[in-house]
Amino acid sequence: MNDSFDPERWTEDGLANALDCVLNTDNPVPPTLARAMRHAVFPGGARVRPRLCLAVGLACGAKPGPLLSAAAVSIELLHCASLVHDDLPCFDDAPTRRGQASVHAAFGERIAVLAGDALIVLAFEVFAATIAQAPGRAAGLLRTISGAVGVPGGICAGQAWESESQVELAAYQRAKTGALFVAAAVAGAQAAGAEIAPWQRFGERLGEAYQVADDLRDVAADPAVLGKPVGRDVALDRPSAAREYGFGGAIRHFETLVADAMDAIPACPGAHALRAMVQHEARRLVPAEWLLRAA
Amino acid sequence: MNDSFDPERWTEDGLANALDCVLNTDNPVPPTLARAMRHAVFPGGARVRPRLCLAVGLACGAKPGPLLSAAAVSIELLHCASLVHDDLPCFDDAPTRRGQASVHAAFGERIAVLAGDALIVLAFEVFAATIAQAPGRAAGLLRTISGAVGVPGGICAGQAWESESQVELAAYQRAKTGALFVAAAVAGAQAAGAEIAPWQRFGERLGEAYQVADDLRDVAADPAVLGKPVGRDVALDRPSAAREYGFGGAIRHFETLVADAMDAIPACPGAHALRAMVQHEARRLVPAEWLLRAA
Repeated sequence: MNDSFDPERWTEDGLANALDCVLNTDNPVPPTLARAMRHAVFPGGARVRPRLCLAVGLACGAKPGPLLSAAAVSIELLHCASLVHDDLPCFDDAPTRRGQASVHAAFGERIAVLAGDALIVLAFEVFAATIAQAPGRAAGLLRTISGAVGVPGGICAGQAWESESQVELAAYQRAKTGALFVAAAVAGAQAAGAEIAPWQRFGERLGEAYQVADDLRDVAADPAVLGKPVGRDVALDRPSAAREYGFGGAIRHFETLVADAMDAIPACPGAHALRAMVQHEARRLVPAEWLLRAA
Repeated sequence: MNDSFDPERWTEDGLANALDCVLNTDNPVPPTLARAMRHAVFPGGARVRPRLCLAVGLACGAKPGPLLSAAAVSIELLHCASLVHDDLPCFDDAPTRRGQASVHAAFGERIAVLAGDALIVLAFEVFAATIAQAPGRAAGLLRTISGAVGVPGGICAGQAWESESQVELAAYQRAKTGALFVAAAVAGAQAAGAEIAPWQRFGERLGEAYQVADDLRDVAADPAVLGKPVGRDVALDRPSAAREYGFGGAIRHFETLVADAMDAIPACPGAHALRAMVQHEARRLVPAEWLLRAA
């Protein structure tokens, strides 16, 4: 890795390249679907999952090459797909996302269903090119990532728990938001050929922290900054750490989870840089003024 | 292959096993989602795509082992997923499918979106186990199958053409129904390590024939037998060969396509058995009395 390596550009270029591979070919694509797929992916949010995958991969000594790129891109495409389907009228019916119209609001419900489906497919298609190069690692990545979005422990399962009358908060959060965090961390390690167990715990704590931060944002943040309507957990009667622990309790829970995540980082070449990144991310998610408010 | 090999049981067992791998584990699954996923896959329709994949694989000399099974199962899971999403209120709003309630009618719209998503994910997850065994063939299968459901040429693109004002009938049909037929035939050959070009043409002709037969059924068949409401192409103003060529013209078009498919079958160990299967399938799709009606 040289000084000119830019993690943000690496992530955006990887995503743009994946979309170009299917949307910019000699074959015609239904133009509305093509626009909707790009709209779902660009501009992005914080790209926290692919950045996490990259950070763990680099910390474990992987090169930012095709395998790590496929892992990070796949995870972000699946995250974007889940947002598109999550925003559908039958779920959150969210008119906006990332400060612009949600996909169904901009392109209609049919195209939103299809754009989500096509992004899921693309997330797996990106692995085809990596299999010949490193079959063992590619197979592990495919397992990790499919497990994080499917059943029993992935995003689909997490969402489906919202339709059940009996829900355990931790299991629900682990599946809905945590699973893709765990996958991002584990996939980074897998791309490097590193031991995955510590990264599993690291990803779990970080994922849970992120969900708590999201619950907090839902009650505390400025809607103009957040880019989506707030107060939806209460409006939709969904489980929420902020509702369960109160604002101060949720903040303390968040800080404990971040500390646990830092502790989970094993000895590895990039441990120091990774800890700094986690700390920086924690303050981005839960600003210092929230800590004061909760004290 | 010995005398006790039963293609129907092989297909059903493969599908049941794939679902059990994610629904019958030590981890809890949201029960409604689990029921919906099984409802989407069982009981099946004619299982024509996995049977085609198997038939081509066997004709090319493949064993009915893990690789061919993963291909056939993946293709059928993707077909089932596409039916679940296609039946959604924003698309066909079909109350029934295969003679029972459609997934959204039985379990609600949210669970139908999620069951479709989870089946797509599972369709790719089944390849993880085959990669180590035969990386080159697994990579080829992953490309073939993802191409058949995504963009630019797969089912998602085919569906999305329905939302465009300008549609070319052949391109639309190729993407919407044909793509998975082509993939089934090509995947069978890939699992066997055979040349894929002739099977591409074979799958294209057969897929187009199947779509024409579907259009014909839409205007000609008994709804009690078909298991879904008829006349929907006209009601939904969708392109249809029966509307474009008339009943007799569509029948003749179907027969030409089947003959072309038979001609495309290359010299291979199972060519004779495969031709007999295609002929049998053609009469199942377009009964002899329809030929008389069209004469």
